[in-house]
Amino acid sequence: MKRDKVTFNEIAHYTGFSKTTISRYFNDPDSVSEKTREQLSAALKKLNYRENKLARVLAKGKTEFIGVIIPDLQMHYYARLLTEILAMSDLYGYKFLVFQGRGNLEAEERYIRELLSYSVEGLLMVSHTIPSASLASLDIPVITIEREDRHVSSVNADNYCGGRLAAKALADCGCEIMIHINADLKPVSPAYGRIIGFRNLCAELKLPEEEFLHSFGNKYEEIYPVMKTVFDTIRKKYKDRKKGIFVSNDTAANVLLNIILQTYRTLPDDWKIVGFDDSPISQEAVIPISSIRQDIPRIATEAVKMLADQIEEKKKGKHDTSLYHNIIPVEYIGRRTTQ
Amino acid sequence: MKRDKVTFNEIAHYTGFSKTTISRYFNDPDSVSEKTREQLSAALKKLNYRENKLARVLAKGKTEFIGVIIPDLQMHYYARLLTEILAMSDLYGYKFLVFQGRGNLEAEERYIRELLSYSVEGLLMVSHTIPSASLASLDIPVITIEREDRHVSSVNADNYCGGRLAAKALADCGCEIMIHINADLKPVSPAYGRIIGFRNLCAELKLPEEEFLHSFGNKYEEIYPVMKTVFDTIRKKYKDRKKGIFVSNDTAANVLLNIILQTYRTLPDDWKIVGFDDSPISQEAVIPISSIRQDIPRIATEAVKMLADQIEEKKKGKHDTSLYHNIIPVEYIGRRTTQ
Repeated sequence: MKRDKVTFNEIAHYTGFSKTTISRYFNDPDSVSEKTREQLSAALKKLNYRENKLARVLAKGKTEFIGVIIPDLQMHYYARLLTEILAMSDLYGYKFLVFQGRGNLEAEERYIRELLSYSVEGLLMVSHTIPSASLASLDIPVITIEREDRHVSSVNADNYCGGRLAAKALADCGCEIMIHINADLKPVSPAYGRIIGFRNLCAELKLPEEEFLHSFGNKYEEIYPVMKTVFDTIRKKYKDRKKGIFVSNDTAANVLLNIILQTYRTLPDDWKIVGFDDSPISQEAVIPISSIRQDIPRIATEAVKMLADQIEEKKKGKHDTSLYHNIIPVEYIGRRTTQ
Repeated sequence: MKRDKVTFNEIAHYTGFSKTTISRYFNDPDSVSEKTREQLSAALKKLNYRENKLARVLAKGKTEFIGVIIPDLQMHYYARLLTEILAMSDLYGYKFLVFQGRGNLEAEERYIRELLSYSVEGLLMVSHTIPSASLASLDIPVITIEREDRHVSSVNADNYCGGRLAAKALADCGCEIMIHINADLKPVSPAYGRIIGFRNLCAELKLPEEEFLHSFGNKYEEIYPVMKTVFDTIRKKYKDRKKGIFVSNDTAANVLLNIILQTYRTLPDDWKIVGFDDSPISQEAVIPISSIRQDIPRIATEAVKMLADQIEEKKKGKHDTSLYHNIIPVEYIGRRTTQ
């Protein structure tokens, strides 16, 4: 028997149940007795019946599809985040349709149209290109993660606290000049909080602070020349002072560490470093790098949960326009670069 | 006007086209003139029409869904591979439903049932747990990547050649004892070719070879103690000989390099290392590590193309049972650990 072709008639004939009972079994399993469910389940197995969920989707409007648009899986943070999002599949029964935007606005808009045409129930937006005002105008629930979120609900790490923790760790080492290296972020970016948190604690502690804020790319070969220039500047300018350097991500922190090691063959006591993300490189570096850990599993869990809640509300016809910005705590991980 | 509710009648009324023309536009756009297409496209935009692809799917049996099951996105190789697979979305119009197996057989079987119930047109199987015999019994096209593939078509890197290239690079450095560190792989695993390739070239060059084959995990903290023991053994046993060490992946090669650097503060001239994968860590290490590069973009491209071809053949009712095992060339990348 070709399995695709099993009809309700055949199931009814084979099991003796009415088509109404069989229909109830498929559409509202709890409305039939456990015994009936077991008998039908066994019969369907025997008949090689394969459920066509798409047909049910059309009947019931529930696809269980969630769209995910991420910027670039080659950055560890996004790979880890997607790992944790996909792990939520079992808990919620969601299927994740994943697109990678790579900073291409036109492509991301097209992906969203695609996702809508396949009746996704919600969207997890991690890419940065589409403004939250546009996302808010979609008529499906949207949660953003770690990006501009003025018009949508979101989950972000506590970047501000992360900046403060980094400053505190470096101050605790007795650093005399505090330096922050970051991209030239816009204030609407959640990661901007790292700059403000660092700056504020330095001011509170009355420690001189200097910021090097310009884009330095994501890849080793892009980061290296920028970091080399910053290193040369710092080395010359703060020759005899104990330098506390907070770098906005661990990949870049590791590049700085390598430049220091290539220059001095060791990490001199007047250079202290804290990175951000607690990504594998912070542990894999020859001198393990202190870092600020983002709780990525919790970020993913909260985002999927918030999205699931919005989807449920929407089904009940409720339309809650309040925005929630969920801030997830970060943690300082001390390693050898702050000892 | 609520956009979901736009009907063919309304479109016909608004545009003056017949319902037959409109239906042809949706189901076979090339069968209507370019001018008609443009007029209809503009009208649909005005009407806020949103295509319901799922309804079309049921009518035409074409979901454009491809299932992807990967083991673990936290390993760079898989994140990179998924990056390249997702990048094929634009070329083929496929939507990728992504699941992460994490070595859980029961979960992966469930994911496959889910994917089938959503009428995926094909499956890219990167996870290892489900035997290829089971995959071959699914009635959709399946392509595997870098895993046991006796009963399905597949794309793999040229692991055998990779092993030979590693041996050649170490022999060219004048190494006197050749060492290979790998997991205890089964011969059906494509990566087993690395062991054989290395072993064979050493034999051809009449160089003594020793293999350390036991599982050492994927994470730094798992790899470290295993690698430390191997390092201590090698150091003692081959004290006065020039050691050429081929490590089965760059993460593990970097751990070995760190242990050497922590012991000697430099990489002594009698230790030469080649890793595998050319993953970022090989470049990010304080002493950049020579490696064997897998052409991941091409692996992904070939896999999606082979799957697309099989899907087309299946639609035409052809049933080609031949298996194709597509082997993608690898490349030696010389860096400082073989200088």
